[in-house]
Amino acid sequence: MTNIAEAQLIALDWGTTSARAYLMGRGGSIVANRSASLGIMQVAAQAKENSLTLDAAFEQALAELCGEWMETYPLIPVIACGMIGSQQGWVEATYRAVPANLAAPEFELASVEISPGRRMHVIPGVLDLKTLPDVMRGEETQILGAVELGGTDSRSEMEQLFLLPGTHSKWVKVQGRTITEFSTSMTGETFALLSSQSILSKMIESSESVSWIAFERGVQVSQSANGAADLMLTAFSARTLVLTGRLQRTEVSDYLSGLMIGAEIRSVIGAWDGSVLPPLTICGNKELSARYRRALKNFGITEVRELQGTAPRGVWAVACALGLLQASPV
Amino acid sequence: MTNIAEAQLIALDWGTTSARAYLMGRGGSIVANRSASLGIMQVAAQAKENSLTLDAAFEQALAELCGEWMETYPLIPVIACGMIGSQQGWVEATYRAVPANLAAPEFELASVEISPGRRMHVIPGVLDLKTLPDVMRGEETQILGAVELGGTDSRSEMEQLFLLPGTHSKWVKVQGRTITEFSTSMTGETFALLSSQSILSKMIESSESVSWIAFERGVQVSQSANGAADLMLTAFSARTLVLTGRLQRTEVSDYLSGLMIGAEIRSVIGAWDGSVLPPLTICGNKELSARYRRALKNFGITEVRELQGTAPRGVWAVACALGLLQASPV
Repeated sequence: MTNIAEAQLIALDWGTTSARAYLMGRGGSIVANRSASLGIMQVAAQAKENSLTLDAAFEQALAELCGEWMETYPLIPVIACGMIGSQQGWVEATYRAVPANLAAPEFELASVEISPGRRMHVIPGVLDLKTLPDVMRGEETQILGAVELGGTDSRSEMEQLFLLPGTHSKWVKVQGRTITEFSTSMTGETFALLSSQSILSKMIESSESVSWIAFERGVQVSQSANGAADLMLTAFSARTLVLTGRLQRTEVSDYLSGLMIGAEIRSVIGAWDGSVLPPLTICGNKELSARYRRALKNFGITEVRELQGTAPRGVWAVACALGLLQASPV
Repeated sequence: MTNIAEAQLIALDWGTTSARAYLMGRGGSIVANRSASLGIMQVAAQAKENSLTLDAAFEQALAELCGEWMETYPLIPVIACGMIGSQQGWVEATYRAVPANLAAPEFELASVEISPGRRMHVIPGVLDLKTLPDVMRGEETQILGAVELGGTDSRSEMEQLFLLPGTHSKWVKVQGRTITEFSTSMTGETFALLSSQSILSKMIESSESVSWIAFERGVQVSQSANGAADLMLTAFSARTLVLTGRLQRTEVSDYLSGLMIGAEIRSVIGAWDGSVLPPLTICGNKELSARYRRALKNFGITEVRELQGTAPRGVWAVACALGLLQASPV
């Protein structure tokens, strides 16, 4: 129990569909962790179902997730990142605009009372107020964690590119610890809709393993003259290639995945045409990261770093930067 | 009853979600028409529900739709176009490949027995076997009808462009009565999915009238440097513009519609870069045609003809070309 005794922080990565809690100790090490399907969406549903106020439902979810830790360590800070800080969350944390220094000692956290005399801090998201604005919540903390874990000198102003694939993929340019610009692609969500509910879904037979051949075929279409057309014009080929006997039904899903991830990469790289791409790190689950890595290779981008589970390290870095950690309790 | 006595053809436009029947007379005039929610999807569902064979369910649907006409005119031909000729339909009509002369006297119709001694003919769809193949069923007959109604000299080899907006928009190049090439854009289906089920749907408040300002704003984004990026990268702005107070919730749906229709037009026109666009006819419902007309105007395309309900005229033209009409019964 030595480690437990050194617990200094409860970090939460609280998103739309899941909540993860980390009990953290000396040097940002993870002492214990828990996760549950208690994202803000599910908590809102529970509130409705049990006729609770949203506040009460969030309190209950937090207790379920890490109530024991909170009792055992009544004094250590509790800090969350993610959609918990959105309008639909527990307390709204106003966005910071780019350029946003993720570890600035002066930035403000939102907070909400979680038990008498104790508050949970919430890390704000980041806003890029360009012509088509962009927003993120939670990814900024994953990125800060990745910068920390990546071993970059904290004073370094090296430019890096981070890709956080998922429901809404984020492509984020970072200088040192400052987010300078970013873009969101709705690739994951649209893929899920097209492959489960559109006419294309009727062509799909599930397969036990990824067909990398079909995936790369989709990527290559996205790189061809056909790929210059919008995805809406190329996606129908996931149906017609089957109808004409040129694609197996078990390959359709991976073909479409390649087509969509390829279109995303082509668009992002196209926007930066001519400029050298900064070193790229993918922060995402392994399966999805492998797809992006494979697609990027088709675009000639082979030096790609992968990191997983960087959010708690980001929360820890914020706690350090803001002086929220007590002097070592031992 | 003079007109009825002259009935010469029962034409059917039988699609996925609806079926339309036309009793046609002298010169291709429409004597009577009926429509019902008896598309091949619903008929398949009824077959399952009532433990009927698919054949029996289609027979029943046809009787419901135009059984009276069939009894009154036991000798006139019955000809259908659309998804009724697909694998999921009543009888499969093999596609014709482009270049496909829609009124060639020698092309083969599929057929199925609909009552003892009587068959329904089914017009085949068209296939464009390019790198990313494309298919249509039903649209080819709408186009033939539009060519006929457009008053083009039947011997003319004038090139025309037809746009059939909808769930799956078709852009079709036609020379005389021959389809030379075409492309499908899944715009309508993807718009329906994104606006009803994605994160964007949470931003949408319905509005009684179309906001043309929001629609054109979307079109203009699709024409900008941002529009060069794939739709997946621009669509998120339908959320972020609301979050940043730059778009009203009642405008989101029309903004997204403009963004998507604009992306479709940009893609199609981009593919034909440099070549003069042939005269354009839109065949579609009035509401959707108005949107495309407005968007096209933003792309500098102002000479656009609109036609509605051209399918029966196309069936009539096929019947004439194949010599299926009896000599005038009067």
